[in-house]
Order: sequence, then structure tokens, then C-alpha cells
Amino acid sequence: MKITLHPISNGLTDVKGFFCAGTGCDIRNKNNPDRLDLALVYSKTPCTAAGVFTTNDVKAAPVIVDQKHLKASRNAMHAIIGNSGNANACTGPQGITDVHATAEAAAKYLGVKPEQVFVCSTGRIGDFLPMPKITAGLERLCKTYSADSEQGRKAAEAILTSDTKSKTVTVTVALGSESITIAGIAKGAGMIQPNMATMLAFIATDAKISSDLLQKLLSAAVDESFNAISVDGDMSTNDTVLVLANGASGIAVSEQQVEYGNAFFEGLRNVCQILADKMVSDGERITKVVELLIENAPSRHAAEAVARAIANSLLVKCSWYGEDPNWGRLADSAGYARVGTVMEKMDIYYNEVPAVLQGVPQAHLKEQWKTVVKNRRFTIRMNLNIGSANYRFLTTDLSEGYVNFNKGE
Amino acid sequence: MKITLHPISNGLTDVKGFFCAGTGCDIRNKNNPDRLDLALVYSKTPCTAAGVFTTNDVKAAPVIVDQKHLKASRNAMHAIIGNSGNANACTGPQGITDVHATAEAAAKYLGVKPEQVFVCSTGRIGDFLPMPKITAGLERLCKTYSADSEQGRKAAEAILTSDTKSKTVTVTVALGSESITIAGIAKGAGMIQPNMATMLAFIATDAKISSDLLQKLLSAAVDESFNAISVDGDMSTNDTVLVLANGASGIAVSEQQVEYGNAFFEGLRNVCQILADKMVSDGERITKVVELLIENAPSRHAAEAVARAIANSLLVKCSWYGEDPNWGRLADSAGYARVGTVMEKMDIYYNEVPAVLQGVPQAHLKEQWKTVVKNRRFTIRMNLNIGSANYRFLTTDLSEGYVNFNKGE
Repeated sequence: MKITLHPISNGLTDVKGFFCAGTGCDIRNKNNPDRLDLALVYSKTPCTAAGVFTTNDVKAAPVIVDQKHLKASRNAMHAIIGNSGNANACTGPQGITDVHATAEAAAKYLGVKPEQVFVCSTGRIGDFLPMPKITAGLERLCKTYSADSEQGRKAAEAILTSDTKSKTVTVTVALGSESITIAGIAKGAGMIQPNMATMLAFIATDAKISSDLLQKLLSAAVDESFNAISVDGDMSTNDTVLVLANGASGIAVSEQQVEYGNAFFEGLRNVCQILADKMVSDGERITKVVELLIENAPSRHAAEAVARAIANSLLVKCSWYGEDPNWGRLADSAGYARVGTVMEKMDIYYNEVPAVLQGVPQAHLKEQWKTVVKNRRFTIRMNLNIGSANYRFLTTDLSEGYVNFNKGE
Repeated sequence: MKITLHPISNGLTDVKGFFCAGTGCDIRNKNNPDRLDLALVYSKTPCTAAGVFTTNDVKAAPVIVDQKHLKASRNAMHAIIGNSGNANACTGPQGITDVHATAEAAAKYLGVKPEQVFVCSTGRIGDFLPMPKITAGLERLCKTYSADSEQGRKAAEAILTSDTKSKTVTVTVALGSESITIAGIAKGAGMIQPNMATMLAFIATDAKISSDLLQKLLSAAVDESFNAISVDGDMSTNDTVLVLANGASGIAVSEQQVEYGNAFFEGLRNVCQILADKMVSDGERITKVVELLIENAPSRHAAEAVARAIANSLLVKCSWYGEDPNWGRLADSAGYARVGTVMEKMDIYYNEVPAVLQGVPQAHLKEQWKTVVKNRRFTIRMNLNIGSANYRFLTTDLSEGYVNFNKGE
């Protein structure tokens, strides 16, 4: 098995048989039609599909409809429509009607059925979609889609909101003399604590794979990527990860062929982890990316609880912002996760520099910790020494800029 | 039953038989001996006592020792020593030794046993207490304590850390021609989400009450006050609420006398709620105090989960800071509390102005919501309409100033 990360990714047009397009509809009503805000991903061949959606009780209209479309057409999906600028969340029956109208318009132009189209939205909550603008935009998308890299990049750009960068990734999984391509695009910079958090990720592959296996592998990959990151601890109404597999490579991946199954999963996990990493690194007004490694916890669940308590602690995040290696706040947060942490057994490292060993501060190394936290990216390893389960989590600091950026009107 | 709130509270010297003192020991090593940082509360008559402590796995040394002292002497406590500037947390065996040495020194000067003395600390985590300064300070306290209001105010001042104001309250509970006094002092401005959070509260009363009943009533009062507030969602290693009852009023409160028991509980709850309110109102660099009323939830636990999800959402807190009535973020947070929220049933009010009724935005009233959130203090009422349980919670916004204040060195 060999997985190759492409140095340049153009998004989903990097995968055989996938067409993309992006256009601007001024969904935000800012008189700025040059800003792309509507994307199309399309395969003429029907695709097997899988999806992971927000677990929020308050689900946006497109999430509700997409779950139905996935159930109905998981072996024959054709397209994804994504818009930024408006989340179509908390919009009641009108919101549902608008999703159906979007899917129907796209289906008509593409010559497929509405339930073979996913619709994804991201942006402000509580406003109705500007439907005349959307349907006009859909017509343009369906006339301009292509397999060219330019339209691949435009689709990736059209789903962005407060992101400062497009997020694309392409990997090739070599299997003997053959190969499969998996590519992904994503958006997400705030309201990010997937499980899911305002994030959209669309993944395309030319593997031939059953929808059941695709769903199983996607869920596992999401668990180790999008569900293991947090910028601000907020979970959105719209989070969605979708995969379409059109089989264009002619290579079949199944549970019976263990080697191919493992290789495909590794490729898919890579795509998800790289997109998740790009989201965190582009977190709203962040200045630090922090990898948390929680080790030797009583269970994976306990390790995750400790990681989330640390990652979501305002005091911890503020100290990172200030480049203050305040390990006391780390220990405090680990303690209130209440998984049986014993201070006297705890080791804490900044990168490879010990800050606490068996509960004893290593104050003579303080200047070294301080040097570590001056980096834009560093690792904090907390060894609880009360079990054998580990967990990796990626998070950020909290800046004054984040507060200013999100204070609204 | 009549409860009178004193217009001016001098803290615990307002209660018959209680002596206080406060002194400066330069515990922070800032060459500032004028800053008070060591407090004594003392009753010559032995007191029944009750306490509520942090549930953090990582408990500071004084919390561990106080729990033992309470168990050993709950019917005969004499004193509380409180210091600010150093939390004596994550300090290992040396930290425990220092607490014992503090209690022993105070006990020697006061002529009582060490286990009849509580020791409480608040401040930075991970540093050892400067014991020579503390023991010298204890000697001064035990020579200067008095029942005068000046020393009462000094004790209240000496336990403050980042607080900008002393927090004191005194109530009188009239029972026929007799009366009981209950007074409290507290500190706490950051790392505040009790259950408990860095907060200390010391309460004194001249009621005659068993330690068992006192514990029961204190736990109930804390649940509706200190455990129903949040500034930043962080729970500390040191949180402690203590009550001493010296019986000096001669009035007995027992479960058999329902009227007296109820009246005393009301008084105690008032003291706790007023102190909790003062803590939130003095939250670090806050600009808004927000009362959340969650109504008609499936259970009290569910209502509390929704309140905490809203109160701890960074996006919600930022929007309050920006005076943006972003009800979409409220609905989103309620949804990820995952208690079965149904958007189509939800009502949201800013004070008495509806923002959402049965899931439908009341956009024509938007100017009125905007006016409400311009106030320093306002109420958000969320009626889930899926049950009959209610919960009240008090919280704050998140400002750029908070981030700057907590970024450390």
C-alpha cells in the first residue's frame, strides 16, 4: 500500500469522472456578485454515497432533507449543491420547501431525480434563502460545470464563509499497478467542534465500493479527524460530511479484499485528517494550533473527555494566546473532566520538554517550556498514568480578535 | 417570616460572637505589604459547621485537609484562615504539610485544636505557600482580631484576587420577636463555574443548628446559587463554601420546627444568591450580566444542560458583548445540549419582548430586542414547551478584555 499526497490539489475535479462549478449569487445581499457562494459537484455515473451529519437537536433544513435523500438513493447519488452565506437553519417549513426547490431545480437541469441531489448550506442562522438568486445560479452552474481544475477550485472557494483559505486535498492510493484517487474540499473556521461543527466537507473518489462499507469507513475516519478538533467548542446546526464514489477507476474495494479495504480507509482517513487540520489552522483569528496527546487514560472516552476539557477551557486558551505555559490550568481542566485523574501520577510535556513529572513541577525547565509555546504550532502531551487508552485532539488558542470578530452587528 | 437585607454589610462581624481580622503578607512577592491577603474568622464559642467543596479530581491541598477537619470537628469548629495570591494547588505532599502548619500555628495562637481550623487558599496554581510570611501574618491576625466592623471589612478584602469589589452580605431573619443574623463574604471573578469554581464563600450565623441540618440546608442553597452561575465555564481546584453557626442568638433551628427551618433556609439561600450575584456582576472584564430562564424542559437536569450550553457558548457570549441579539446562536446551543429540543416548539424572549414564538422569528420586533441587549443586565427566557421543569442561571458575556486579562505572563 502506498498513499501519495498531491502537492497541489484542485479539489474534486482531481478525481476521474467528477465535474465541478462555482458561481456568485450575492446570497449575503452585499451587492458583491464576484464573491463565489454556490457550488456544484456532479458525477454523470451514479455514485454510492455516505454521510455524517450534525447531532444537534436543532438541525438545519438541508441536513434533514439530505438524510432522507441519502437513505433513498445511497446507491445512486449524482450531485451536491453547496451554498455559503446562509445556513437555512431555524427556518421552519419554508426552509424545507426551499431545500426541495433547490434539489428539484438542479435535478431538472442535470436530468436526474431530486432525491439524487444533496443540498448543503452554511452561513447565518434564521434567514430564508434568496430562492430566485439560487435558482438563477443553479442554471449557470449546470451550464458551466466541467472537469477542469479551474472549476474544481471554484467549487472549493464557493463554500467558504469566514475561512481565509480554500481547503482542498487529493491523495492517490496505489494498489499494485492500479490506483484510486480520493479528493476532498471543506469549509469551516468558527463554530467548530464537530460532532459535527459548522463545517462542510465533500469527498469524491473513483473507487468502486458499496454504500454500506463506504458509510462504515467514513464514520470511522470522521471519528479520528473532524470529531477530534475544536476551535471554539460550538457545534453547528449544519455540519455535514459527504462522500461520493463513482467507481470510475474500475477498482473494487470490499471487506473481502482486506488489503484494498485497509488501503482505501487509510487514504480516506488521510483526506479527512488533512482537511480537519486545515480547518483548525484557519480557525477564526487564532494565533496557535495545539495538538493534545492524552495518554494512559482509563478509557478512550476518558482520554477524549480530558482533551475536550482542556481544549475548551477559556483560561487554557487565553494562556496559549499569551504564550504563557500555565500548566496549572491544564491540570485543573483535566481534573474537572472527572475521569479519576490523580495529580501525583500526572506527567505533562510541552513538545518533548517535561513540565510536570509524577505531579512534580519541573520548574528548572521553565525557560524551555516558554520557548515551545512561542511557536505557532506545538504539542502538549499529558500522560495520566492511570490506564492504557490514548487520544489525539487538535485545537487552538482564543484571541481578542476572535471575540471582536464574533461580536456581531 | 421576615427577611431583612442590611443596606450596609461589614461581613462576618455583623454576626454576634464572630471576630475577624485581615492583614497583608505580600504572598504574591510583589513587595506590596499594604495589599491584604490573609484573613481570620473566629468564634470563641465552638460552632457547628457545614461545607461544600470543589468536585474537581485535582483538589488543592486546603480542600483535602478541610474535608478531614470538617469530618472530625463538625460540631466544634472555631476558625477559618483564608489567603489570596496562592492557591496551594498541585503542590503535592509539601502543600498538605503547609496546610497543617497553617492550621497548627493558628490553633496555637487561638488556644484551640488544629482540626478546629479551616484553611482556604485562592490564587495561582503550582507554587508553594511562603510559610514564614504566613506564620508571621497569622500571629498578627490572632493579636488584632476584633468584633469591629473595620476588621470584618478587612477579612472580606483579604480573600479577594482579581475581584474589583469586596463581596459581603448580611441578612436578619425575624422569628416572632426574636431574630437570627446570617452574614457572608466571598471572592470570585474568574474560573467561575462552581460545581464549584474558584470561589470562596464564608458564612457565619448566630443560629443554633445541628451540623447535619446545616449541611443539608447549605447543599440545597448552594445548588440554587453558586452552582447556578458561570463566568467562563472553568471549575477550580479550590472552590469552597463554609458555614459556621455559633448559636449566640440562643434561637434553635431544627427540622421539627418547620417554620424556623424554612425561615433559616430562606435567609441562607438569600445570602448565597446575593453573593453569587455579586460574583457574576464582578466577573473578569465583563460588560453584561445575563439571567437565563429555561422553562418547560423535560427535566430540571435537561433545563440546566440547556442553560449551561448557552452560558458557555463562546459565540453566544461574544454576541452579547457585541449587543447583537443573535437568537440563532441561542437555538443552536440549546440544540447541542441534546435534551430533545424541538425548534418548532421553542419561544425565546429578550426581557418581555418575543424574538421567536413556536420556532417562528418575530423579526418585526428586532429593534426592541436590540434595545434590551444594550442594557448591562437583561433576561433571556427560553420556553422549550416540551415538559414542565424550569431552571434559572446567571452568566456573563465574554469580552476582549477577558482574553487580554487572562493571557498571563
